[in-house]
Amino acid sequence: MTSTSPRHRLSPAISLLTGIALAAAAGAEPLRDRANDLFNPVPAISDTATGRALNPDQVELGKMLFFEPRISASHLISCNTCHNVGFGGHDYLPTSIGHGWQRGPRNSPTVFNAVFNAAQFWDGRAADLAEQAKGPVQASVEMSSTPARVTATLSSMPEYFERFQTAFPDAAEPLSFDNMALAIEAFETTLTTPNSAFDAYLKGDDAALTAQQKAGLGLFMDKGCAACHTGVNLGGQHYFPFGLIARPGADILPVGDKGRFAVTRTASDEYVFRAAPLRNVALTAPYFHSGAVWSLEEAVAIMGRSQLGAELNAEEVSQITAFLASLTGEQPHIAYPLLPPSTADTPRPDPMWKPTAGH
Amino acid sequence: MTSTSPRHRLSPAISLLTGIALAAAAGAEPLRDRANDLFNPVPAISDTATGRALNPDQVELGKMLFFEPRISASHLISCNTCHNVGFGGHDYLPTSIGHGWQRGPRNSPTVFNAVFNAAQFWDGRAADLAEQAKGPVQASVEMSSTPARVTATLSSMPEYFERFQTAFPDAAEPLSFDNMALAIEAFETTLTTPNSAFDAYLKGDDAALTAQQKAGLGLFMDKGCAACHTGVNLGGQHYFPFGLIARPGADILPVGDKGRFAVTRTASDEYVFRAAPLRNVALTAPYFHSGAVWSLEEAVAIMGRSQLGAELNAEEVSQITAFLASLTGEQPHIAYPLLPPSTADTPRPDPMWKPTAGH
Repeated sequence: MTSTSPRHRLSPAISLLTGIALAAAAGAEPLRDRANDLFNPVPAISDTATGRALNPDQVELGKMLFFEPRISASHLISCNTCHNVGFGGHDYLPTSIGHGWQRGPRNSPTVFNAVFNAAQFWDGRAADLAEQAKGPVQASVEMSSTPARVTATLSSMPEYFERFQTAFPDAAEPLSFDNMALAIEAFETTLTTPNSAFDAYLKGDDAALTAQQKAGLGLFMDKGCAACHTGVNLGGQHYFPFGLIARPGADILPVGDKGRFAVTRTASDEYVFRAAPLRNVALTAPYFHSGAVWSLEEAVAIMGRSQLGAELNAEEVSQITAFLASLTGEQPHIAYPLLPPSTADTPRPDPMWKPTAGH
Repeated sequence: MTSTSPRHRLSPAISLLTGIALAAAAGAEPLRDRANDLFNPVPAISDTATGRALNPDQVELGKMLFFEPRISASHLISCNTCHNVGFGGHDYLPTSIGHGWQRGPRNSPTVFNAVFNAAQFWDGRAADLAEQAKGPVQASVEMSSTPARVTATLSSMPEYFERFQTAFPDAAEPLSFDNMALAIEAFETTLTTPNSAFDAYLKGDDAALTAQQKAGLGLFMDKGCAACHTGVNLGGQHYFPFGLIARPGADILPVGDKGRFAVTRTASDEYVFRAAPLRNVALTAPYFHSGAVWSLEEAVAIMGRSQLGAELNAEEVSQITAFLASLTGEQPHIAYPLLPPSTADTPRPDPMWKPTAGH
């Protein structure tokens, strides 16, 4: 059912070795042993995540591009607008606002730990972060730009020209739309959130989770949540129908958005979405692709009914929600990049603006 | 003609002492002596700038608020949207884009070194940065929020509540709209750009300016530019008619924006604006309150004609422009703040959105 690229799966050899090391450290708590069979801690930043060597010049350039509003037609919207690094990597909006104040159709997913997802977007239509990065730049409701406009913009500023030369020394044409996307991917690869309470528990620290959180972890596995929400990101690996048992109302599952069907044109993929990755989920309200639900407790209860056919009681919802809060890791600390000045050759902001009376 | 607050002028005693120290260090180059009579280097960050003690807790809180989109009705727009710290403290747009994609009537001035201006906004309608900060939050074309909504939003997040308590320990009501503004002012007070080439020259380093820049400095004083553009910020201190000698065309000086007249309702203040502060001017295109001119050379030539009645030749324009580039100082390095998560009590983003078809 998936169409994922092999480079986005963690190497089985590495997973196995990590598993052995963890098992040795973890002692014999049965709950932890079960959890270690299903989940992995967020690893240290490394080359393994994308399969490409992590190049510091690409990371630094990618950070500049991530914060660069001039890759949008308006010169107002950057990647950080909807994937705010001060906000857990998203925007606290039901669906994002883009070019011309248009509202996008889906909730902005967090960029944090996105490198560990098997594919990108709610419907997995991009195989990796580099492919993903090209989407919003061109989407009419997001940045509304074009590859030609982006490369003309970046080429107009000598500092960008030189940084692409340094970051992609072997490329025939270092400053290109493709390399912009690869640089953004390199930066985003560093946006991981290690050392959550849950990861400390997986690694053997009994005291890292409260009794309530351990009960929630047990329920998360026993009730079947972990059937879809597994791996490093507790999700983000496979596709499942939203409404497997009972379809939620149209307020939560709008009938016009058929999810992965738009990618595969296969009837069985109607209302199929990538299982949401749950790292830092306590920081990423509102929930679901529609962004219709602000309360994590309510989202847990809806998942129980729609995916598991289970009416979770209030205590169970509280316990699972408490467990989910243990997935909040250390947030990345980012130094705001200094961006080069526009020049006479920089394409002007797109004039598709509506002037208003003065105030 | 001005309505400035005394706390926004540098203390004469301090200016005098600084002047004596500089004169001793500077040696006897006549050009520098003349310059030191008219201009001051950007001082180290200190309490003298606002007259209030600089409180580190207020600075850190103010940084969070400066990057906080949830003080806007949409939850999309922060101070940094139009005063981008990676962009020289402004937005590289003719006039800014705000709530509902409305376009504001005037060019966004840089926040860098704004603490040294005698008053804020192009028409000086705010006496200081704290008063200024309250404007865009409430302006319908900018953030479109209200004091009640802002305090409800900030109060809904325990971390903000605690940080206001710490930053304003003696206040009866620490978390208030006024204290939000004071915290933002405290952060903005730290956004200075010291150690420009021009400042090194003022302090005695002959080699800090090129021969062309020295020629431009001479012209800047001889032609009369320095009659308005003086002090630390080479401007920002007093008000003058735009078009003193010859009024520019309506493309540059729109007839509907009468500048300081809107503040004072005095006929002689029609088309009067605060002399633009020129620190980092090479980073803050496009120019004038209308943002109509992208080229600094062209802006210099227009100023010559409209304010001085002088047709500067191409060499003079180049020399003055080269001098202006020496005003670019060290840009502030900012660590992106981590902002607290929204809670169940956080007011929702304003729904004044226009949904669009999916993409």
